[in-house]
Amino acid sequence: MEEQQPKLYVIGLDLGGTNSVFGIVNQRGEILATSAIKTQQYTKVEDFVDAGVKSLRPIIEQVGGIATIKAMGIGAPNANFYKGTIEFAPNLVWAHDSIVPLAQMFSGQLGIPVGITNDANAAAIGEMQYGVARGMKNFIMLTLGTGVGSGIVVNGQLVYGCDGFAGELGHVTMVRENGRSCGCGRNGCLEAYCSATGVARTAREFLIESTEESILRNLDSEKITSLDVSLAAAKGDPLAKRVYEFTGKMLGDACADFATFISPEAFIFFGGLTKAGDLLMKPIEKEYNNHVMSIFRGKAKFLVSTLDDASAAVLGASAIGWDL
Amino acid sequence: MEEQQPKLYVIGLDLGGTNSVFGIVNQRGEILATSAIKTQQYTKVEDFVDAGVKSLRPIIEQVGGIATIKAMGIGAPNANFYKGTIEFAPNLVWAHDSIVPLAQMFSGQLGIPVGITNDANAAAIGEMQYGVARGMKNFIMLTLGTGVGSGIVVNGQLVYGCDGFAGELGHVTMVRENGRSCGCGRNGCLEAYCSATGVARTAREFLIESTEESILRNLDSEKITSLDVSLAAAKGDPLAKRVYEFTGKMLGDACADFATFISPEAFIFFGGLTKAGDLLMKPIEKEYNNHVMSIFRGKAKFLVSTLDDASAAVLGASAIGWDL
Repeated sequence: MEEQQPKLYVIGLDLGGTNSVFGIVNQRGEILATSAIKTQQYTKVEDFVDAGVKSLRPIIEQVGGIATIKAMGIGAPNANFYKGTIEFAPNLVWAHDSIVPLAQMFSGQLGIPVGITNDANAAAIGEMQYGVARGMKNFIMLTLGTGVGSGIVVNGQLVYGCDGFAGELGHVTMVRENGRSCGCGRNGCLEAYCSATGVARTAREFLIESTEESILRNLDSEKITSLDVSLAAAKGDPLAKRVYEFTGKMLGDACADFATFISPEAFIFFGGLTKAGDLLMKPIEKEYNNHVMSIFRGKAKFLVSTLDDASAAVLGASAIGWDL
Repeated sequence: MEEQQPKLYVIGLDLGGTNSVFGIVNQRGEILATSAIKTQQYTKVEDFVDAGVKSLRPIIEQVGGIATIKAMGIGAPNANFYKGTIEFAPNLVWAHDSIVPLAQMFSGQLGIPVGITNDANAAAIGEMQYGVARGMKNFIMLTLGTGVGSGIVVNGQLVYGCDGFAGELGHVTMVRENGRSCGCGRNGCLEAYCSATGVARTAREFLIESTEESILRNLDSEKITSLDVSLAAAKGDPLAKRVYEFTGKMLGDACADFATFISPEAFIFFGGLTKAGDLLMKPIEKEYNNHVMSIFRGKAKFLVSTLDDASAAVLGASAIGWDL
């Protein structure tokens, strides 16, 4: 009888619009080896997968061969967990106007189970496996980057819904009349206000609406970024601070609504905007506890991810593999 | 070795402010026997439980004795599923200012497992066990009565959250500025607009704001009920119809937000307001499909509970028992 080799590792693939980064990860969330390819260098998905597997082979050998690998997880835009597909992803040439069975393609070549989900869901699973959500059964992950993404965990399981697309909390309507236009084609979404681009937009609006002194007035208004606002706020700029108060207040109100859904033990924030630290987090928590239903007040923690930015996406993707 | 008798039945207790109705229910959702006591006739919970068990004994014997009963489920206000308690229930004299371990008390006397949850959660479990949600894994139950209650099912499991109080969708904020005051002490909640009392309130507001002809003007404005509005709308009264369009539109908008959470396969409605039928349901579905994110459009069904009103609460409560 052949002896069963222990499955010590999972592979994580952070599939972004520019780079695709592979990592081999152990149970403690340590990345033992990585490789990378350029996502857009390939016009056909077959070539992308071939190149990915080719870049993986040496690092798989490095950790003891494919027999030591339990599974692979992929974090990618427009990913459907149930079907293992990427569907009509605007930023991927080889999945721009088609449905691509990416999980099955990698699985076929590697001979291990492969799962796929979107970046925010991967981040939530990553936090549960290696990060601040270890041991939590009910929490909400909010990723505050170019957009606002979310991953929701209920009873210890990620919420995928009936079609694999659940957890789009960036698109709850926060402003029902004259709301800002959103990338999703609708108006007033949380994402239109509380993403990095939303924060920059708020700053531009505040600069127009008031005559208040601000070091942001020294910048080209059209080129202001959330980082500029954060740096100005850190220097005590009152207008920039108001931008973060406005953003935090809206996130706090949104979280108060989210609490009625799953009464989470924590809201976990990840992404560029969280670099603002207390400038953002204090207004969120303050507004939440002012506004939430009294039975939920004071129960939820407000946490910032502790996973290293550079590796969080690979870790999150890899974490899918442990449950396959 | 003693032969194990098949556990054919569960007991359901619909614990209301006035009556407490017990029913013995089989797997198909048929109520084989019932008994009832007056909830408020007892000032001590011990006396309430004693009287309940006394009323149960004969109907238990009727179906073959306690050995045929798998478990008991209780649907009650302010119930905590995790702890088996009723906590500070304003409408129950014997639980008004205390935490009452009701599940444990019944379990102790009957010698079977006993579970407890709130009415809307019980309704959701009832629909899943016996009603229109059979076979569904992800759906949202909305009960439109004096208030707006909800029960949320994800991955086939009811969502209780970290504390047992999840699923309070009647208290998401729908109107963020100058919203109506709500019974929860906050403003602008869904319940303040889309409950039976909310509908009556909308009608009164519309009567004041316009000079439009309406048969509702023949009634004492303060005494208008949602039923009056529904009857007037059914007769073609334009103002009354506008009230239902307003109500349905808000519910549709709320459901569009809820979809971003769990991407449900159905929204299921129960309670007095649903008597208005298409007057209410058509505007809900229309607004939902107009407003929801495009990836969710057309995917969710909008259903009205088919469980008999008189027995739905007992059935819902009993359904908790099958999972214990």
